[in-house]
Amino acid sequence: MLPRFRHVALIGKYQAQGIEPVLNDIAQLLLRLGAEVALEHDTALNTSLAEYPMLTVAEIGLRCDLAIVVGGDGTMLHIARELARYGVPLIGINQGRLGFITDIPVQDVRETLREMFAGHYEEEHRTMLEGQVLRDGHPIFDGFAMNDVVVSRGATAGMVELRVDVDEQFMANIRADGLIVASPTGSTAYALSANGPILHPAIKGWVLVPIAPHTLSNRPIVLPDSSQITIEIVAGRDASANFDMQRLASLLHGDRICVRRSAHQVRFLHPRGWSYYATLRKKLHWNEGVGV
Amino acid sequence: MLPRFRHVALIGKYQAQGIEPVLNDIAQLLLRLGAEVALEHDTALNTSLAEYPMLTVAEIGLRCDLAIVVGGDGTMLHIARELARYGVPLIGINQGRLGFITDIPVQDVRETLREMFAGHYEEEHRTMLEGQVLRDGHPIFDGFAMNDVVVSRGATAGMVELRVDVDEQFMANIRADGLIVASPTGSTAYALSANGPILHPAIKGWVLVPIAPHTLSNRPIVLPDSSQITIEIVAGRDASANFDMQRLASLLHGDRICVRRSAHQVRFLHPRGWSYYATLRKKLHWNEGVGV
Amino acid sequence: MLPRFRHVALIGKYQAQGIEPVLNDIAQLLLRLGAEVALEHDTALNTSLAEYPMLTVAEIGLRCDLAIVVGGDGTMLHIARELARYGVPLIGINQGRLGFITDIPVQDVRETLREMFAGHYEEEHRTMLEGQVLRDGHPIFDGFAMNDVVVSRGATAGMVELRVDVDEQFMANIRADGLIVASPTGSTAYALSANGPILHPAIKGWVLVPIAPHTLSNRPIVLPDSSQITIEIVAGRDASANFDMQRLASLLHGDRICVRRSAHQVRFLHPRGWSYYATLRKKLHWNEGVGV
Amino acid sequence: MLPRFRHVALIGKYQAQGIEPVLNDIAQLLLRLGAEVALEHDTALNTSLAEYPMLTVAEIGLRCDLAIVVGGDGTMLHIARELARYGVPLIGINQGRLGFITDIPVQDVRETLREMFAGHYEEEHRTMLEGQVLRDGHPIFDGFAMNDVVVSRGATAGMVELRVDVDEQFMANIRADGLIVASPTGSTAYALSANGPILHPAIKGWVLVPIAPHTLSNRPIVLPDSSQITIEIVAGRDASANFDMQRLASLLHGDRICVRRSAHQVRFLHPRGWSYYATLRKKLHWNEGVGV
Repeated sequence: MLPRFRHVALIGKYQAQGIEPVLNDIAQLLLRLGAEVALEHDTALNTSLAEYPMLTVAEIGLRCDLAIVVGGDGTMLHIARELARYGVPLIGINQGRLGFITDIPVQDVRETLREMFAGHYEEEHRTMLEGQVLRDGHPIFDGFAMNDVVVSRGATAGMVELRVDVDEQFMANIRADGLIVASPTGSTAYALSANGPILHPAIKGWVLVPIAPHTLSNRPIVLPDSSQITIEIVAGRDASANFDMQRLASLLHGDRICVRRSAHQVRFLHPRGWSYYATLRKKLHWNEGVGV
Repeated sequence: MLPRFRHVALIGKYQAQGIEPVLNDIAQLLLRLGAEVALEHDTALNTSLAEYPMLTVAEIGLRCDLAIVVGGDGTMLHIARELARYGVPLIGINQGRLGFITDIPVQDVRETLREMFAGHYEEEHRTMLEGQVLRDGHPIFDGFAMNDVVVSRGATAGMVELRVDVDEQFMANIRADGLIVASPTGSTAYALSANGPILHPAIKGWVLVPIAPHTLSNRPIVLPDSSQITIEIVAGRDASANFDMQRLASLLHGDRICVRRSAHQVRFLHPRGWSYYATLRKKLHWNEGVGV
Repeated sequence: MLPRFRHVALIGKYQAQGIEPVLNDIAQLLLRLGAEVALEHDTALNTSLAEYPMLTVAEIGLRCDLAIVVGGDGTMLHIARELARYGVPLIGINQGRLGFITDIPVQDVRETLREMFAGHYEEEHRTMLEGQVLRDGHPIFDGFAMNDVVVSRGATAGMVELRVDVDEQFMANIRADGLIVASPTGSTAYALSANGPILHPAIKGWVLVPIAPHTLSNRPIVLPDSSQITIEIVAGRDASANFDMQRLASLLHGDRICVRRSAHQVRFLHPRGWSYYATLRKKLHWNEGVGV
Repeated sequence: MLPRFRHVALIGKYQAQGIEPVLNDIAQLLLRLGAEVALEHDTALNTSLAEYPMLTVAEIGLRCDLAIVVGGDGTMLHIARELARYGVPLIGINQGRLGFITDIPVQDVRETLREMFAGHYEEEHRTMLEGQVLRDGHPIFDGFAMNDVVVSRGATAGMVELRVDVDEQFMANIRADGLIVASPTGSTAYALSANGPILHPAIKGWVLVPIAPHTLSNRPIVLPDSSQITIEIVAGRDASANFDMQRLASLLHGDRICVRRSAHQVRFLHPRGWSYYATLRKKLHWNEGVGV
């Protein structure tokens, strides 16, 4: 029996140039495919596509059985994080620059969506990080992250010193510009720049990547995602915690950032025959001999 | 109810200086703890401890319910690989230089073993790699590895080119000095030298680490250990495949090295309160500020 | 004919515990060696050593022919930077933790200084960076750096984009957390943490080390120190420029940081037989097999 | 007064496909520019261009005042190394794939050579390594290298241990797969793959890059090219020394490889306006955001 996508939400990158006709084309295509189409609230306000109903992200979560995102990885990550608790699957369409998770080029959208609506797709689940900042034992901030939780030094000179405990076992004191806790999804983002490895999306782990660590043997380490990771600010002024885009600045000594796997997962749908490795090859120019 | 170790085998590092009295002390201690003690065949031949029965590794596997290794990580890995199919747990004792898996210093052996025989220990399982070399589709070599399978260039100048497929999906063509497929156990060995990350032993993954890759974006990648990894020799003279210590040289173009998780796991027993992170801290000098 | 140090200034680490008796011992030793001894102004105010004349750093520069620093590399760098224009040579004494440039352990000070005053020393010159921040073409900040000039992102999320020109030739646009321009002296400091190479002090070059660069092939590059390096803020909020300890924050897009070699060099005096490599070995624990 | 190139030698990549018409076109162009044209001996034998005189490389060195190489960096390095002692300048033409030192695309050759023969070019000098292998103090091998001298382990398992002395000062014992001593020219070749920095051609230094070093703090180090570097084989079987392409295998413990700057330099001629940085940007894809 074929899968069905009856109520579909369309989300466009915020104020992206030239996105309106693209969204309209996809909306018309979805109608022809038998779906009811709604526009995400901000997307609707930023375009003049008045003929489609408008839904908040929460309403999309409750009413839709598919969300299609047109934009880059940033837009996709943002919406995916919001929709995770509702279990709505997502399809990502890029407007020209291939993303790690927005893998359908806009020019292929008709054929690809038709195929996917006919049930020819692959579903992939991505883990998400959930974190809390504790001060004197009391939560002062919490958030979700699809890519990473980053604890970093303030703008003023000097490193932070961070104490890392894993499942209440002491791991290390790290003096560095900061520490990244990245999911497999985030392993190809900031963590990769800071010399972290790539984690396949099916790896049930996080990678801890210190940024410019004082101790040269403080290498990236991959930990089970069932672990609770606690990062305490030991020294350094004006450290901050960052959950994807959300930042809590001015952390104090003794503040603890606790990170664990979220109960929610993100569901991405890919075209039949999609290959994670093909995306890596293209994004990382593996076949062009960059280098020597 | 407490665990019981009735038949215990003792294995010493091959021709290690001063190991005989250490082995004898441990054997006497084991007798006092109520165990029957046997010496591994080569260990017995290289010492003059004639009063204990002598068993081959296979006999140890069939008859003993504990193996105690005195030596370094190399000895431990060797015996662990051999005993894996029998499910015999191992305890590792180092003679001075802390190992990643030989974690009991010889001077603590009395107190520690007494505690462990009283049931106060922690059991940890380590995955093992199993590989096969295929020529024209026919197996010409197979082996097990606890640390890593390494495909590397011959001694003559120039790189190898390797085609990597994962579960029959093409991943990449890699031009490099070689490619390491390391288990979590092996992630702190050769792979670490080649810029790989540390994998916690509970991570169900392998890390692929290219050695001096031509393409700078050919970064280490962590793959699920349920994957079958196939490495084909595309170019380069006199490549070799290495399974821990066992080497098959003179590989030909078209030869394929297939790596998957072994059905067997290694069982290590650690003293109560043992910490993987404490070992990392000591081995990698994390607390001494090596660096800046 | 032997070299002579007639007027010697003593500088102690700011408010370091237990430094007063050490300074007094050295002062007495210097007197016995026939020198006139002065205390640096802040050092004098922070101790109760009232019997020695007090000189500002500028006065030391004009009147003394040797400065002896007791403390760590930080104190040494600070004073060296100030004294560079006067050409006063420096000797560095550490209070327990070996520094890269404070290489005489306090317990060896008597014998070592006696030898050095007898002319048995080695003189080494270190280059220094000099930089200026230009806004709309007008200088708004300038400074010297013995270690490095660092341009880095503000505390708010996101990278900076920096345009680098060398001698008015375009080199690259770099998107990263920041960019370090390090002298040989600074190559073993922050730049090393960010994956830069070590530069021998005699290398007439700077190393540019991007911090967590977006483009993986943006590798550290060593440029002649006769080059003028210009770094322009292209994108990113609240970037800052740091000259060793001095920071200019809130840089604007279009601001340019121009870095060149200072006309002044720092003169370090080392005990006869001093070895740069011995210091590296000790500081970087090269002989302890940190790693695998 | 303009420079003159009266006697010009043409050298083609060995048995490169389609090179004959390219060489003939360039030869005809050179004749029109007033030069006398000769073909390098092997180039002549591998083509049917019978109308030009044939010269060995040594004869080119003695008689020509310019050598034009058509091929890749490999061909260029080979000829440059041979011609260095004669001081003949070289121009490098690539047949499609930009090289670091073969920087003129074949389609631009007419216009570019005309300009350069009119005196509009930039001359750049590259240092060269010269080395000797000593056994029991007696030379058993010597050679030159434009890129690098590499001492590496044999094909059989296990590292080499190398003792490095610089100007007869002990630097370090390094356990690794090998050690690269690279010139600035070689810094963008193998050394870059092994995590070395880029050295600008004007840097008077070598970079020592250990390959997969056991000790994680054994980082690349840049040394003055006036240094004599001695590498002794301390442990490891069947180590080899490689001078660019020339290899001496089966080194014994105690063998020493001595490396110093050659008295000869290579002279490269580039088109007016040539930029080293533009080559780096293109070769390393700096502007394509490879990565995140």
